[in-house]
Amino acid sequence: MGSLLDDLLAVLPADRVLTDPDLLSGHARDEADLCPAGTPLAVVRPQDTAEVAATVRVAAAHEVPVVPQGARTGLTGAANATDGALVVSLTGLNRILEIDPAERIAVVQPGVVNAELRRAVAKEGLAYPPDPGSWESSTIGGNVSTDAGGMCCVKYGVTGEYVLGLEVVLADGEILRCGRRTVKGVAGYDLTRLFVGAEGTLGIITEITVRLRPAPREARTLVAVYPTMATAGQAVSSVIAAGHVPSMLELLDRTHLRAIEAYRPMGLDTEAAAMLLVALDTGDEAGAELEQIAEHCRTAGASELYVAGDAAEAEALTAARRLAHPAMEHLATQTFPDGRGGLIVDDVAVPRSRIVELVTGVEEISARHDVLVGVVGHAGDGNLHPVIVVDLADSSSLDRGRLVFDEIMRLGLALGGTCTGEHGVGLLKRDWLAEELGPVGVRLHRALKTALDPAGILNPGKVIAPG
Amino acid sequence: MGSLLDDLLAVLPADRVLTDPDLLSGHARDEADLCPAGTPLAVVRPQDTAEVAATVRVAAAHEVPVVPQGARTGLTGAANATDGALVVSLTGLNRILEIDPAERIAVVQPGVVNAELRRAVAKEGLAYPPDPGSWESSTIGGNVSTDAGGMCCVKYGVTGEYVLGLEVVLADGEILRCGRRTVKGVAGYDLTRLFVGAEGTLGIITEITVRLRPAPREARTLVAVYPTMATAGQAVSSVIAAGHVPSMLELLDRTHLRAIEAYRPMGLDTEAAAMLLVALDTGDEAGAELEQIAEHCRTAGASELYVAGDAAEAEALTAARRLAHPAMEHLATQTFPDGRGGLIVDDVAVPRSRIVELVTGVEEISARHDVLVGVVGHAGDGNLHPVIVVDLADSSSLDRGRLVFDEIMRLGLALGGTCTGEHGVGLLKRDWLAEELGPVGVRLHRALKTALDPAGILNPGKVIAPG
Repeated sequence: MGSLLDDLLAVLPADRVLTDPDLLSGHARDEADLCPAGTPLAVVRPQDTAEVAATVRVAAAHEVPVVPQGARTGLTGAANATDGALVVSLTGLNRILEIDPAERIAVVQPGVVNAELRRAVAKEGLAYPPDPGSWESSTIGGNVSTDAGGMCCVKYGVTGEYVLGLEVVLADGEILRCGRRTVKGVAGYDLTRLFVGAEGTLGIITEITVRLRPAPREARTLVAVYPTMATAGQAVSSVIAAGHVPSMLELLDRTHLRAIEAYRPMGLDTEAAAMLLVALDTGDEAGAELEQIAEHCRTAGASELYVAGDAAEAEALTAARRLAHPAMEHLATQTFPDGRGGLIVDDVAVPRSRIVELVTGVEEISARHDVLVGVVGHAGDGNLHPVIVVDLADSSSLDRGRLVFDEIMRLGLALGGTCTGEHGVGLLKRDWLAEELGPVGVRLHRALKTALDPAGILNPGKVIAPG
Repeated sequence: MGSLLDDLLAVLPADRVLTDPDLLSGHARDEADLCPAGTPLAVVRPQDTAEVAATVRVAAAHEVPVVPQGARTGLTGAANATDGALVVSLTGLNRILEIDPAERIAVVQPGVVNAELRRAVAKEGLAYPPDPGSWESSTIGGNVSTDAGGMCCVKYGVTGEYVLGLEVVLADGEILRCGRRTVKGVAGYDLTRLFVGAEGTLGIITEITVRLRPAPREARTLVAVYPTMATAGQAVSSVIAAGHVPSMLELLDRTHLRAIEAYRPMGLDTEAAAMLLVALDTGDEAGAELEQIAEHCRTAGASELYVAGDAAEAEALTAARRLAHPAMEHLATQTFPDGRGGLIVDDVAVPRSRIVELVTGVEEISARHDVLVGVVGHAGDGNLHPVIVVDLADSSSLDRGRLVFDEIMRLGLALGGTCTGEHGVGLLKRDWLAEELGPVGVRLHRALKTALDPAGILNPGKVIAPG
């Protein structure tokens, strides 16, 4: 056995193994501002499954940690490198291998960008629903590894519900194929689901078979503005209780309305407490149902209500929602200039009927610690993102930001919620996952990790702390 | 430590532990005629989770196998006892603990019968979609443990898609709570999915939180009769390719049409090669779409086509389909009288476009071995049930039945299918699961089993043979 690098170069073409210091630091972390990250020993860019397997075998022989990465758009540090680790960047495995309209499935490599897959299947009259905010840059492999969500989940569910089968490189470099290409199949333990959301701690995903749906019709959208969070919450409850299943039911709070308006002026009501966006993707048939939803929104106390006249207008309204994250980043840099502004993007899902309690609780926590927190998210499925604005150069601001984060997590669990609705655990939520699971659940996580990765080389320290 | 029975009686009320020989033999097996079964040492009927946990702790101390049972309506021997094992019958845990219409969830104990839950949530305007043929008798715990399917899966998916959270007694008697009550949640490894379909080999499910849906509207149904299997298959392909998502798309072959007509005469065309049943559960809105589907069915070559005039007529057509299993049982007893008639109910799912190849292949296998095989099932999702009629008292008939079964399994896998679409593995499919998984998948199954049940006491020998 030579050095790790020598052994890698013995089994991989030379251009797959990168050690340029700038490139190493460029692969240190994802978009979670506050999670620790180290400098990898090397970044490996395999071009196929065999090269991933060869890389893992060398790493296993050297007992060196392997950190898989996609586009590094994650929000929990799950893709963060540690000092001396081997980063395996899957972006070179970026081919759509197959789209089968008759079976309504696609087979893709993990480095395929979400939006690319969406566009490719749309040409066949099909849809791949999962739509994380990062869809123009995040990869399907990353989406699967974090079980990413998005705005459509209220109707269509999260990424995991679309994963039929996987090819996975295991901790010893063996290649597993699991799952199926058929619509139905219940053969054996659900290995596929075990790797979904495991953030690369149980294996490295090298191929994904996804289920597709018939393309939805055009969306029809309405916007309702509320003077209080309670009235907005009441509207959400009424719409859901009446049995409607919108394709989008989003909430933006005042902080977000102001941040978006400051970033891209579009005439949003910056005095409102909250804005709801509701869509139906059933084309012309949506009209009558959208009017019923509008009536629920009015009855709950909307101060203003606007129904988009056509699909283009509906798309413009949705675009405002999609600006939430960049607008909050802009707000952070305006509030704390010179690169000091940072965000802790939280992600908490509560029972739908507890949304108002969550949001008003967040307001109270924010005021008590004098930390700016905006709330945005998927009100229709109870999944909200409190976004905490901090000064990265001020330890007092960071400490208060972390306190606020912890108090929000505690509140979410107390409301019967979960510490992550769609972003995953990574490093950011590891302690809160343990809190949510309890000792028996933690023990079971460790047992599964040990069963699949006895030497602990696969993305160690993510999801669950070593035993 | 006393005897197993003494130790059980020390921790459980006396009426929970049953050793009457008739009762023991009555709990020996499920409905899989050909799977081996033994006589349990005792049947335990716990009334709550603590009693299940106490039972497992005693069994673990004595290293005695524990076989969980529900209504024993399974079709793979997954609930079959072995000699000297402890059967744990969950039918006493039969309470619906909660129905929450605002959150669209229900929390139930495993012994609740599927149809009871359906009726209870229907009163709230909600639906629990999974509808195995056994719904009037099978339990939710059994449905979850086998990941049971049904006729609605083509639109609504199998049981696993409705399971949000579980309480599980682990192999050491510890109690795990996993999953969530929220619509969304991706916290940690998907423990919930690991227990779904694991047939009690990883833990004993004692509570289930299920997702509900708004009640569908009334169903509208059509029946189309075909002179050849190829034309029926063409109709299925056209309907799916056109983007329709029916709430039912069932196929019955000539053997089934004749068996049903002999069992309950209802004027079915017993000369037809196949009959399709297609439903839309969108009430009056279904009309136009059902006409489009009818057009696809006609174009494919239907010799007769009938659209149900109203919901009652639609229900009558569906009732014919629901008679398939009892009718085939009746056919078996008529063909081989004096209790000799038996069925091997197979369950294979192939890509939808390969259905015709599967059915014509089954016909060829049936003819070559001179064994009667009827085919029925869920054509819309490629999941069919070849039903093999055997003489249980004739070893040559049994041997030929098993040969036919194996050839059908081999054909299904060769067509890109899976060895089970909805019935599960149990004992019947164990070898074929291993064939489908390959050595790496088998190794992973054993690693998971060992991680969760190191002593191998939970339903040993089911799903996967011990290593």
